Amino acid sequence: MMEHNIKFDFPVSNARHFLEPGPVVLVTSKWQNKTDIMTMGWHMVMEFSPSLIGCIISSENFSHSLIRRSSECVINIPPASLIDTVVGIGNSSGEHSDKFSQFELTPTQATKVDAPIIEECHASFECRLYDDTMIEVYNMFIFEIVKGHASPFADKEKTIHYQGMGQFIQSGKILDRNELFKLSKLN
Amino acid sequence: MMEHNIKFDFPVSNARHFLEPGPVVLVTSKWQNKTDIMTMGWHMVMEFSPSLIGCIISSENFSHSLIRRSSECVINIPPASLIDTVVGIGNSSGEHSDKFSQFELTPTQATKVDAPIIEECHASFECRLYDDTMIEVYNMFIFEIVKGHASPFADKEKTIHYQGMGQFIQSGKILDRNELFKLSKLN
Repeated sequence: MMEHNIKFDFPVSNARHFLEPGPVVLVTSKWQNKTDIMTMGWHMVMEFSPSLIGCIISSENFSHSLIRRSSECVINIPPASLIDTVVGIGNSSGEHSDKFSQFELTPTQATKVDAPIIEECHASFECRLYDDTMIEVYNMFIFEIVKGHASPFADKEKTIHYQGMGQFIQSGKILDRNELFKLSKLN
Repeated sequence: MMEHNIKFDFPVSNARHFLEPGPVVLVTSKWQNKTDIMTMGWHMVMEFSPSLIGCIISSENFSHSLIRRSSECVINIPPASLIDTVVGIGNSSGEHSDKFSQFELTPTQATKVDAPIIEECHASFECRLYDDTMIEVYNMFIFEIVKGHASPFADKEKTIHYQGMGQFIQSGKILDRNELFKLSKLN
């Protein structure tokens, strides 16, 4: 298993590099003295600048109330090797337990929010609530990513993508079509 | 290359099976006598029932106006073998061309919307605009998936997931953790 205890700043405007492919992520939150971790599969990039991400976080999830109260979270990208941890976190509630100790994960201090970064994840994005108007209707939070972190080995990690029924698709090989894009104006 | 000319009904409440892993999709639209196809990477599942999907469709894209006017589209999942077609469609405008003929794709009739299905895609979801309140601010369309179609070979296809800079991640192996879910109440 690769070590990700050292991370470098990663530009928030390029958060799509890790988020747009659609991996399952671990969301950390903190309010007062209570911390939680949740597994999340429903999210999308919404804008480059400001760097916005939309997320569905069910009100039945303990994290929902911590994030509403603190208006903050960290979105962490777990490597595929953490799959059983991801499933375990998704299938338990943090209301009466400390998920960091329960799942042997290491919290590290973020820079712009109080919610902790998960050291074992290869990339992490500190988020502040940007727009709360969709929370009541759809449980949809729109966050601004205010700080990014990535391990130097981040691009060597596989990610996992959930399709329901307990089945995940692991990411595979990279297909580089950059040359085709250079022919056009887009990127 | 696998043939996907025959498709079976796929339950709309399980659209997440194809969409939640986060593949690049091809969105087809039609208004009056004009049809378009666009490449889309920014989307997320929002609800099982009604089956809702949120999508960011830039107002600079010709499809944006066709979809606003018709309040409909089809979201098609292209197999990885179509990667160069996906890039070509993403890097061109349909305003003055017919993308079906330009990219040698076959339009087939949908059942509940006028926008066509792309025969070469292994799964397709007919969508009706469900909530337009986020279009002005974020170019975000919330669609209800009203009909699903999938090829019998759909689960044999790899998908492609965009990470910017002309690079795609191809989907890899399936990791089955269904047994872990059966131990919990969730699914």
